[in-house]
Amino acid sequence: MAESANAVEATLEQLLPAPHGLHARVHEAMRYAVFAGGKRLRPFLVLQSARLFGVDSAQALRTAAAIEVLHTYSLVHDDLPCMDDDALRRGRPTTHIAFDEATAVLAGDALLTIAFEILADAPTHPSAEVRCRLVARLAAAAGSNGMIGGQMIDMQAPDRAFGADDIIHLQRLKTGQLFEFACEAGAILGEAGDADRERLRLYARDMGLVFQITDDLLDVLSTAEKTGKAVGKDKDQGKATLVSILGVDGAHAEATKIARRAAETLSPYGAAAAELRELPLFLLDRDS
Amino acid sequence: MAESANAVEATLEQLLPAPHGLHARVHEAMRYAVFAGGKRLRPFLVLQSARLFGVDSAQALRTAAAIEVLHTYSLVHDDLPCMDDDALRRGRPTTHIAFDEATAVLAGDALLTIAFEILADAPTHPSAEVRCRLVARLAAAAGSNGMIGGQMIDMQAPDRAFGADDIIHLQRLKTGQLFEFACEAGAILGEAGDADRERLRLYARDMGLVFQITDDLLDVLSTAEKTGKAVGKDKDQGKATLVSILGVDGAHAEATKIARRAAETLSPYGAAAAELRELPLFLLDRDS
Repeated sequence: MAESANAVEATLEQLLPAPHGLHARVHEAMRYAVFAGGKRLRPFLVLQSARLFGVDSAQALRTAAAIEVLHTYSLVHDDLPCMDDDALRRGRPTTHIAFDEATAVLAGDALLTIAFEILADAPTHPSAEVRCRLVARLAAAAGSNGMIGGQMIDMQAPDRAFGADDIIHLQRLKTGQLFEFACEAGAILGEAGDADRERLRLYARDMGLVFQITDDLLDVLSTAEKTGKAVGKDKDQGKATLVSILGVDGAHAEATKIARRAAETLSPYGAAAAELRELPLFLLDRDS
Repeated sequence: MAESANAVEATLEQLLPAPHGLHARVHEAMRYAVFAGGKRLRPFLVLQSARLFGVDSAQALRTAAAIEVLHTYSLVHDDLPCMDDDALRRGRPTTHIAFDEATAVLAGDALLTIAFEILADAPTHPSAEVRCRLVARLAAAAGSNGMIGGQMIDMQAPDRAFGADDIIHLQRLKTGQLFEFACEAGAILGEAGDADRERLRLYARDMGLVFQITDDLLDVLSTAEKTGKAVGKDKDQGKATLVSILGVDGAHAEATKIARRAAETLSPYGAAAAELRELPLFLLDRDS
């Protein structure tokens, strides 16, 4: 994972504009947000799924970079005072604290915009049909019926009595759909059939659930020092999570069950999918 | 112009998601922002430029709708308290006033996202190469070296001593590049050559300048009642404009000169370009 992260860093470095001109501040804020030492989990999913279908690594890296900048935009906007109001992210001041709110809004907008530019440009894939499919699928996953819809529900969540099904629905939109696209992207780049695309999405759906449950567990069990962000926020904000409904042990047991199912989904790919199959089990044990 | 606006309304109605689900609020805010009775100037430019190259009207309408939703996102975000802090737009409360700030940020993000989805989807053009070109060009025009860069400069403008050249540069980024893309889009859809694309961009650059100067003149000369938004803001915020530098008469004379040049640029297209050629002269006389 660290190895692929290095290649992704280099690709991001090359694709993001160097600060220049009277508007250099927005470039600086884009880079501040992107080069913050994240786990690069979504790029890892793209690169691993691309390997299953023999995709050229330069194509996979550009696609991985596009998803990562889009993911970063969502963090920058979600951290804004009018949204989750977070001052700390990965142990550093969030973008609106390090710069200002207007710059953070604009930097987020610019990261969202450049994600589509990267995918649409010719070096991403020789087939324009493939590039259009990537653009359309990413837009659907990130749009008002995907990630943005999930954040909209989340912003209203303290007002509502949510059950486990609602929470799973919310999380599938808010984080799950981008995971699904990251995993499916390899199959799209490899021009694989519908069955492969569906299998990768199924895996990603479970993997995303495991990621979210462990994230909620960390919010309860870990420290700000380890996670690099505020903890205990869900409870303070009165947000229902699977952990608050199932309890710590119940949630961990559920996540373990889902992690095994995710690994099983990819068994048709054998050893080539070893790292993807280990990932959900690895996430279960993370402490940050 | 009113006729083409009706066709654009119908296309927008069909392309924007109907409010549904737990996240219906973001759909409602998207529609509130889009269906606010704007002039639909950018769609008009797309439809008129598409006519020059015999483009199918359904294709032109989808492209026009994509540019309009992207333009609308920029208004929603620019109106936010941390940006221009406007409570009134087209005579109605701005989106963050009618809903709330978080919803306005998300609705803007969703409008930006769906613009690319519309362009990438097959009905926009049979050639995926053309669709990718539209996506990449729109992203460049709207991104950190285009519209967003312009807004970034504008946010810092009160701190700086701007001359006429800086202001023209700012405005070319902030509003000009999207006008350029709107005009060029017809040539891209019609798979016209570089000379046509360049000519349409040149026209748009001048047309955008006329639009901006008359906008600045209205800010000085008109009333909130007529324009549907606050006036006198540039002076209150200490913003330099071409009007503050050249004076009202000087700015009007400059805009007239540029409007004539814009019309002249399109003379090779003869009568087919009559409406585009009249537009900058029409803008000179607008009172809202």
